[in-house]
Amino acid sequence: MSATTTAQRSDQPGRIMSGEMAEQPAVLRRILDQGAPRIREVAERIAARNPRFVLLTARGTSDNAALYAKYLLEVLLGKACGLTSMSTTTAYGAQPDLTDVLVITVSQSGGSPDLVASTEAARAAGAITLAVTNNADSPLAAVSEFHIDVLAGPEKALPATKTYTAELLALYLFVEGLRGGDGAAAKALPDLAQQILDRQDEVRQLAGRYRFAERMVLTSRGYGYPTAKEAALKLMETSYIPALSYSGADLLHGPLAMVDNISPVIAIVTEGKGGQALQPVLERLRGRGADLVVIGSASEVERASAGFALPTDGVAEEVQPILEILPLQMLAYEVTIARGQDPDAPRALAKVTETR
Amino acid sequence: MSATTTAQRSDQPGRIMSGEMAEQPAVLRRILDQGAPRIREVAERIAARNPRFVLLTARGTSDNAALYAKYLLEVLLGKACGLTSMSTTTAYGAQPDLTDVLVITVSQSGGSPDLVASTEAARAAGAITLAVTNNADSPLAAVSEFHIDVLAGPEKALPATKTYTAELLALYLFVEGLRGGDGAAAKALPDLAQQILDRQDEVRQLAGRYRFAERMVLTSRGYGYPTAKEAALKLMETSYIPALSYSGADLLHGPLAMVDNISPVIAIVTEGKGGQALQPVLERLRGRGADLVVIGSASEVERASAGFALPTDGVAEEVQPILEILPLQMLAYEVTIARGQDPDAPRALAKVTETR
Repeated sequence: MSATTTAQRSDQPGRIMSGEMAEQPAVLRRILDQGAPRIREVAERIAARNPRFVLLTARGTSDNAALYAKYLLEVLLGKACGLTSMSTTTAYGAQPDLTDVLVITVSQSGGSPDLVASTEAARAAGAITLAVTNNADSPLAAVSEFHIDVLAGPEKALPATKTYTAELLALYLFVEGLRGGDGAAAKALPDLAQQILDRQDEVRQLAGRYRFAERMVLTSRGYGYPTAKEAALKLMETSYIPALSYSGADLLHGPLAMVDNISPVIAIVTEGKGGQALQPVLERLRGRGADLVVIGSASEVERASAGFALPTDGVAEEVQPILEILPLQMLAYEVTIARGQDPDAPRALAKVTETR
Repeated sequence: MSATTTAQRSDQPGRIMSGEMAEQPAVLRRILDQGAPRIREVAERIAARNPRFVLLTARGTSDNAALYAKYLLEVLLGKACGLTSMSTTTAYGAQPDLTDVLVITVSQSGGSPDLVASTEAARAAGAITLAVTNNADSPLAAVSEFHIDVLAGPEKALPATKTYTAELLALYLFVEGLRGGDGAAAKALPDLAQQILDRQDEVRQLAGRYRFAERMVLTSRGYGYPTAKEAALKLMETSYIPALSYSGADLLHGPLAMVDNISPVIAIVTEGKGGQALQPVLERLRGRGADLVVIGSASEVERASAGFALPTDGVAEEVQPILEILPLQMLAYEVTIARGQDPDAPRALAKVTETR
C-alpha cells in the first residue's frame, strides 16, 4: 500500500502528520544516543581528507536542511559552500572538477533518481560524497562513499516533519565532528522539543488569525532563514496558502511592497547574531503596521502583534533552528485543520518524487 | 531629488519603468559595441589566475542575474559554484579561506553596505574579487580588484529592468571570455529584443487574465530558472500579487499541492536541455488542468492555455534568458496598470537598500 493511499484513508484528518510531529523528541534522543558515535566517525574520516569546498544537494524540505548545514559549515568551520543547481549535471551534463570537494546529498527517502545521478556524477568527478538520509538501504546511500542515517523511522505523512528535524540534528553533529566539537549544545534539545510540542493549544489560538489569510510572508536572517523557508513550504503544502519566504535583507529589496496590513508576516527571530541582524527589518515592519507574529524569545514576542515564545536561554544560536520549526509545523497543521482540510492528504504529492 | 520622489511625481503611471524597458535593445548594443573589449580583458586576466571555485554575491534582481551566471559557469566552464549566504560574513564574521576562489558581486548601484563589506572581507580572505555594477564610481567597484560596468545608464524606476538584462549580457560575455569563446551567440540579441518589445499589445492581452489573480506560480528548469525567479520578483514588486517561483523539480516536491485551476502557472520553457527537462512538469500541470501560460517557442505555446512565443530558432540556449525576461517585465507592467496601480511607485521601496 502506498503512503498516499494510507494518508487518504486516515479516518481522522492530520492523524498521521500529528503522530509524526509528536515523535520528534524521541527521534532527537535516538540520534544523540545511538546515532552520534557513527556520525562522529564519518566526520573524522572526512575531516582527515580535508575538503576545501562543500557542495550541498537536496530538494524540497531536505534542501532547507541543506541550507542550515551551509550556515553551520561557513560560520563554525569557515568552509566556502554552495548549493548545487542540480540540472547543470542531470540536464546539461556539466563536469566540474570536484577534487577536494565534499558533496553532501540530503534526502529523506534517498530514492530520487536525480539525486542519485548527480551524486554518482560528483563521485566520478573526484568528490568526497556523503549521503544523509532516513534510509540506509536507499540507492543514494549505496552510491555515496559515506552515509549518515538520520534514524527518524518510517515517515508516512506527505508533509515531512520528523525527518527535517532529524536531518538538522544529524547535520549539526556532523559539522561538530568535522571541527572536533563535542555537540554538547544539542543535549537539551529533546526535552525542550517536548515542552514546545506540549503547547499545542497556544498554536491553535495563533492559527485562528490565518483562517482566512490569502497570503503570508515569512522572514528571518542567518540560522533562522532555513526555518522561514521550511515553514513556508510546510504551510503551502498543507494549507495551500501562498507563503513567501525571504531573508530579511532580500525582503527590503522589493517584496516589502507586498507587505501591508493584509499580508501577515511571521518572523523567526533567532536569539543571537541572526536575530540582531533582523532588527532593522522588524522595525520597518512594525513601522508599516504589519501583522507581525514572532517565533523567538519572550521579549521579541512581546514587541510583536503576537507570537510563540521559545526557550532560548542557554540554547546556542546554531541549534535553535531545531526548535524554531516545531511551532511552525504545528501552525501549518492547525491552520489546515481550521480551514477544513486534511494535512495528511495534500493534493498531487507523492512521497518519493521522481524528478530526473 | 531621490529616485522615490521622482517616481511618485511621474504624471503618467509607469512612464519611467516603460521608458527604461524600451531602452534595453540600445543597452544590449552598447555592451556589445563598447563594453565587450573591457569585459574580455578582465576575463582574460582572471582566467590567467585560474580560480578553482566561484562564489556569487548579490541581492534582489541582481541575485537572479548571479544565479544565471552560476549556470553559465557550471555548464560552460565546468566550475563548481556557490551563491553566498551573506549574513555568514556580515553578521557572523565567518572567515573562510578564499585562496583560488573568484568572488563575483553583482549590484546595480554598487552601493549596498553589506555587499561592500562582504566583498572587502572576501578580498582580505584571499579571493579574486570582481564587481559587476552599473556604477563605475560606486563603493563596491572601489573595493573590488576587478570591475565590469554594465553600461545601462541611470536607472530611476524602482523595479529594475534594463540593469537586469545588462547584467545578464555582461556576465555572459565575461564567462565567454573566461573560456576563450567569442560571444557570437549574443550578436542577434539587440534586434530580437526590439522585436519582442514591439509586441506590447500581445502582452496587454495576456495581462487581462491576471487582472483578478490572487496568486501566481512561476516555474522553469535550467537556464530559465533565474527568469522564473526574476519574473516573480518583478510581478510582486509592481502588482503585489504573491508570485511564487520554483524550479520544475522542486515544484513536484510539495508546492504543486497549491496549483489548481485557480492558481495560474507561468512556465518559462527555454528551448534546449532546460526545456526538455521541464517536460514532465508541463505534462503534470496540463494533466491537472492548470491555467498554464508558456513563455517559449511557438510550438510550446501552442500546447499551453496561452503564452508568448519567443524567437528561439538559432538562438543558443544560454542566451535565451536575456530575451525570456522581456515579455515578463512587460507583463508585470501591464498587470499593474490593469489593476489601477503605478509600476513606478511600489510601496516601501528605496532604490539603494541599506541592509548591513
